[in-house]
Amino acid sequence: MNVQVLKVPMSSPNDLSGIEKLIQNETFDPNDLVAIMGKTEGNGCVNDFTRALATQSITCYFSKLLDLTPAQFENRVSIVMSGGTEGVLSPHFTLFIVNESERITTPRDVKRLSVAIEHTKDYLPEEIGTISQVLEVKNAVQRAIKKLSIENINDVHFVQIKCPLLTSERIQDAVRRGKSVVTEDTYESMAYSRGASALGVGVATGEVKLDQIDKNNILANHDLYSKVASTSAGIEVLHDVIIAMGNSRYATGKFVVGHDVMEDALDSEAIDRALGNSVPKKLINVFAKAEADPTGYIRGNRHTMLTDSDISHTRMARAVVGGALASKTKDTMIYVSGGAEHQGPSGGGPLAVIWEE
Amino acid sequence: MNVQVLKVPMSSPNDLSGIEKLIQNETFDPNDLVAIMGKTEGNGCVNDFTRALATQSITCYFSKLLDLTPAQFENRVSIVMSGGTEGVLSPHFTLFIVNESERITTPRDVKRLSVAIEHTKDYLPEEIGTISQVLEVKNAVQRAIKKLSIENINDVHFVQIKCPLLTSERIQDAVRRGKSVVTEDTYESMAYSRGASALGVGVATGEVKLDQIDKNNILANHDLYSKVASTSAGIEVLHDVIIAMGNSRYATGKFVVGHDVMEDALDSEAIDRALGNSVPKKLINVFAKAEADPTGYIRGNRHTMLTDSDISHTRMARAVVGGALASKTKDTMIYVSGGAEHQGPSGGGPLAVIWEE
Amino acid sequence: MNVQVLKVPMSSPNDLSGIEKLIQNETFDPNDLVAIMGKTEGNGCVNDFTRALATQSITCYFSKLLDLTPAQFENRVSIVMSGGTEGVLSPHFTLFIVNESERITTPRDVKRLSVAIEHTKDYLPEEIGTISQVLEVKNAVQRAIKKLSIENINDVHFVQIKCPLLTSERIQDAVRRGKSVVTEDTYESMAYSRGASALGVGVATGEVKLDQIDKNNILANHDLYSKVASTSAGIEVLHDVIIAMGNSRYATGKFVVGHDVMEDALDSEAIDRALGNSVPKKLINVFAKAEADPTGYIRGNRHTMLTDSDISHTRMARAVVGGALASKTKDTMIYVSGGAEHQGPSGGGPLAVIWEE
Amino acid sequence: MNVQVLKVPMSSPNDLSGIEKLIQNETFDPNDLVAIMGKTEGNGCVNDFTRALATQSITCYFSKLLDLTPAQFENRVSIVMSGGTEGVLSPHFTLFIVNESERITTPRDVKRLSVAIEHTKDYLPEEIGTISQVLEVKNAVQRAIKKLSIENINDVHFVQIKCPLLTSERIQDAVRRGKSVVTEDTYESMAYSRGASALGVGVATGEVKLDQIDKNNILANHDLYSKVASTSAGIEVLHDVIIAMGNSRYATGKFVVGHDVMEDALDSEAIDRALGNSVPKKLINVFAKAEADPTGYIRGNRHTMLTDSDISHTRMARAVVGGALASKTKDTMIYVSGGAEHQGPSGGGPLAVIWEE
Repeated sequence: MNVQVLKVPMSSPNDLSGIEKLIQNETFDPNDLVAIMGKTEGNGCVNDFTRALATQSITCYFSKLLDLTPAQFENRVSIVMSGGTEGVLSPHFTLFIVNESERITTPRDVKRLSVAIEHTKDYLPEEIGTISQVLEVKNAVQRAIKKLSIENINDVHFVQIKCPLLTSERIQDAVRRGKSVVTEDTYESMAYSRGASALGVGVATGEVKLDQIDKNNILANHDLYSKVASTSAGIEVLHDVIIAMGNSRYATGKFVVGHDVMEDALDSEAIDRALGNSVPKKLINVFAKAEADPTGYIRGNRHTMLTDSDISHTRMARAVVGGALASKTKDTMIYVSGGAEHQGPSGGGPLAVIWEE
Repeated sequence: MNVQVLKVPMSSPNDLSGIEKLIQNETFDPNDLVAIMGKTEGNGCVNDFTRALATQSITCYFSKLLDLTPAQFENRVSIVMSGGTEGVLSPHFTLFIVNESERITTPRDVKRLSVAIEHTKDYLPEEIGTISQVLEVKNAVQRAIKKLSIENINDVHFVQIKCPLLTSERIQDAVRRGKSVVTEDTYESMAYSRGASALGVGVATGEVKLDQIDKNNILANHDLYSKVASTSAGIEVLHDVIIAMGNSRYATGKFVVGHDVMEDALDSEAIDRALGNSVPKKLINVFAKAEADPTGYIRGNRHTMLTDSDISHTRMARAVVGGALASKTKDTMIYVSGGAEHQGPSGGGPLAVIWEE
Repeated sequence: MNVQVLKVPMSSPNDLSGIEKLIQNETFDPNDLVAIMGKTEGNGCVNDFTRALATQSITCYFSKLLDLTPAQFENRVSIVMSGGTEGVLSPHFTLFIVNESERITTPRDVKRLSVAIEHTKDYLPEEIGTISQVLEVKNAVQRAIKKLSIENINDVHFVQIKCPLLTSERIQDAVRRGKSVVTEDTYESMAYSRGASALGVGVATGEVKLDQIDKNNILANHDLYSKVASTSAGIEVLHDVIIAMGNSRYATGKFVVGHDVMEDALDSEAIDRALGNSVPKKLINVFAKAEADPTGYIRGNRHTMLTDSDISHTRMARAVVGGALASKTKDTMIYVSGGAEHQGPSGGGPLAVIWEE
Repeated sequence: MNVQVLKVPMSSPNDLSGIEKLIQNETFDPNDLVAIMGKTEGNGCVNDFTRALATQSITCYFSKLLDLTPAQFENRVSIVMSGGTEGVLSPHFTLFIVNESERITTPRDVKRLSVAIEHTKDYLPEEIGTISQVLEVKNAVQRAIKKLSIENINDVHFVQIKCPLLTSERIQDAVRRGKSVVTEDTYESMAYSRGASALGVGVATGEVKLDQIDKNNILANHDLYSKVASTSAGIEVLHDVIIAMGNSRYATGKFVVGHDVMEDALDSEAIDRALGNSVPKKLINVFAKAEADPTGYIRGNRHTMLTDSDISHTRMARAVVGGALASKTKDTMIYVSGGAEHQGPSGGGPLAVIWEE
């Protein structure tokens, strides 16, 4: 397969003018679109409808263009909108274009970016944030990895997931049916869903063993984590949407993906480690997860993100990591997403880079 | 004079336990204290009472210790509390200790940190943010600079100011007396007061000419600025409090101050430029002003700080600049203050560093 | 004309299931829809995209159902989404259905609710919040009133307007063309646009005289106001959308509209005054504008809405007025909108009630 | 005893000018002060330091005036500062003055307001929000009730409590000692502490039985509650501070207290029920607890307070209940406190009124 990665600014969550231009210029064939990741300018928390607005706008536009029903389009293309462009982060879309007609039968000497998508079934409210979600995600990620045509599990560098959250309505639905949900705090449900999804990735890649997971409290053990999982919760889905990325000898195109983990919010050197010995022609995008260190301390000093009741700590964490990474790359159109439960070490998070070799 | 600079963490705005320990250990003589700068964990905006709480705690403690009335103490020691430790910024005090008994009559070959304090009269509400404030500040800063014993205006590296703001009460007071205030928006009055104070510094140092200032709109011309002014508004003062810093051949001690400007929020290299050719033994503190670029763009990309009606842009700007600078110094106990009107270039701000040579 | 008013709850800004059910049940004919007002659960400020999401969802759904282009639909139906359901306010749509086929040639003895819609041209950024907007609105409102078939200007009880705001992008556009905008503060631009629109209504109804308006500062004189204007700014429009309501002897249907003003946020008795001597069978909806008293005081006591830098005062004002009115009606599905510049007396706002007679 | 109740506005948390004036005018003897309740203008959540600022200001002022150490003063006078004056709520102090010299040995025919104070020991972080806190509070409340000289437990109408919360520091302290805390979410710890304290009151008054309480989850059963408990968490205490109020035949003075519960946030008629058959000369103050209905619904309609990730639901609940009650009393200087766990029915809360008979 030939993979192309395009980054497009947006002036609002429903601004597709940049994408339209690329199609008009024939920069890419809309039939080859397989995934869109976006950073939209909402609060990234429960009541962030910028994700839904962007998703609806994309679905309306492309389903009309490709003569598909919205359901057909969403089945064919993975859409992951992550809310929150705090600080300098600049709202944008990243498009993943895969031309499957370009087939290689003999593996090449060099590895290039390979992309595959999958999704789980829709969850019942009582499944969100539980071991059921872990297992569903594990299976879906394994299906996605198979499609990457990689040699080795180490060639998987990034698994982006969009996962559901609990709303007052969904909680009431479970309660009415006599079921209990993992938490009645809607904001906290985002953490559970992100955590369960990340553990699902970890089990799929072998980074986490299933029997290490506390079935009664997905978030219990911070030592269990995946270094390639990036999960983002949103009100607009009821299932997990999965985008897996690796480097494959069967993939063509100019792009390569690498990863490492940020040990904490200040560890901007993770970019250098993700690049390894490569000397990129051009950095396309950085994908990072951010979280306020749950101990309340960073490098020995107290931080106040967890005791600030006016601003959600996920919002602050994105602003900080955005500032740290962008002061290094001098590019603010990067993907920093909040809430890194079971994604990288506690207080830190996974980081992936896509570059042009 | 011999100048000592001490940095002390605080666990809350009224936590003086770190300072108490330093006095018990005889690390410094409380009689020699001339200034305290602090970053406290409020919102840094109008209703930030953490500044008042820290100020009251300091005043109570030291006035009792030194057997002074609170008024006598506040006359002798400049207290500048800057609210807002968003993101990784860690609440702390910086103490400036000056031993005047150590007098040098012949200038030395090396220059060391020199510190002097001053203050203006209390303002009427209608004077805040106007040319009257500019002039008062100019005079007070000139008095402070004289005390620095420097050879050259280029040896002034940092002028920290605490300035007043308008509250609903103060506005009503002016209105009752038939006077009009510069703005009836209390949050905006902080910008006017910071701007007028910074212009006062600029006029005092010669960076700005008095006749360039638009008397009817202090904030009109972003091209006028001081590279050494750092001004911070707070509800707890009715006058400007001034702390001036320079390097003097008559000063002893291990400390040196340098400065430069951040061209924008990502310009963390300003730290290198402020250090110049020095190879510091130890970085003591970084003092920076942060602001969301008023154009709504940074390095060509849109940012959303000015259109986010949930979080004040000054809060976000501190989080970003804190992330950018701390990812370089790996120290989160730094002084980043918001609102850089007439302080450094638009979208950027002045930055000073104190280090041990 | 026969007018029907329907109120429908929504579970999210893109939830049209309630409306769909009414169409399936043939409660109303979608061809007769002339206006939809909605309260959506965003922050009601600059970056509130719930309004856009609801608008887009409605437009997509109905244009498909009625076989119209989105532009044709939006030309035919006025959509006014007002963001902000703080406190107990419950997100909902109010549908206005007008059957024009039911014509009356001889006026009846009783007056019933009559509804008409209009809109202005799209504005340039530099026109927003200026006298140009006032004049455009005046003309459009006069055209709408003509359609109401009322005898007397006193029969106009409510003129709802959706008006545009300035974004960083729109401001830059004006600046690039060498034009200046009324304010560079995007949140403040909402106030200017609401104020100019309300004055346009006031001039159209004769409540305000054109030459009383300060052309250089639309918001200057709080004594000028309309008692029937309710204006709401949103990022999703570039023109003013107008819904006028009155009572007409040529209208049939069960509904009546009345109005009065709330003198301040506590004046819930305005509902009684709006009802007058009527004994309603059923209260359909209450439409009120809320604002934090700009003096910082209410009934002689200080309030802190204007000095709270964490929460926009428009959000708080809606929460308070929602609490005050709903504690009287015991119905939380009411329309309370923020920012009452030139709408009712300062600190208060207009209030309209629609009931079944 | 003779009890006097005074209400004093404050212009900021450290503004004691109103109290000073009352002392200068000899309206009350500072030696007779037993309790101060205050509503201060912070966010009422974890990082609300307005409570600490008001408490410190009061303690400094009175300890100097009465020639006591701060510790002696705080032992003698109960200080309960409740943060959060959202919406129209107006910051103020309520002073309780008790002259013990006025002793009555024969019970009178009429009952008048009687006030008594108590406190518990300082808690370890791991005790906060647990059954240990319930028991400590129960004992302290029973001691306080004894001092009220009432005939019957039904004569207890209000037990106000200030209780501690967990901070990142306190949690770390417990963790270091190998102890686990009830929650690691600092904002949530406020709910646990309020809940445990309220249950302590309930057990003391007989409204709740000790064996009904789930020892592993204080917040588990919303059906357990006290109708007279009002508990408020704050960073400034490590123990529970208790102010009990009842009507006694041994008390003199003009004041009477009554109570009822608000069934939900709209139930402003609770004021009428609390007054019973009394025809008050003057309403002195209303004390109410507010909470966002945990079901996400109120009177059958959805509310969005629990899914709004920008504003804490406790802040919104205070704004709503403040609006509802003040629109009835037309007095905004009332005491509405947030978080009604185990205080009144779920979604509602206790309400007490003090009036002049």
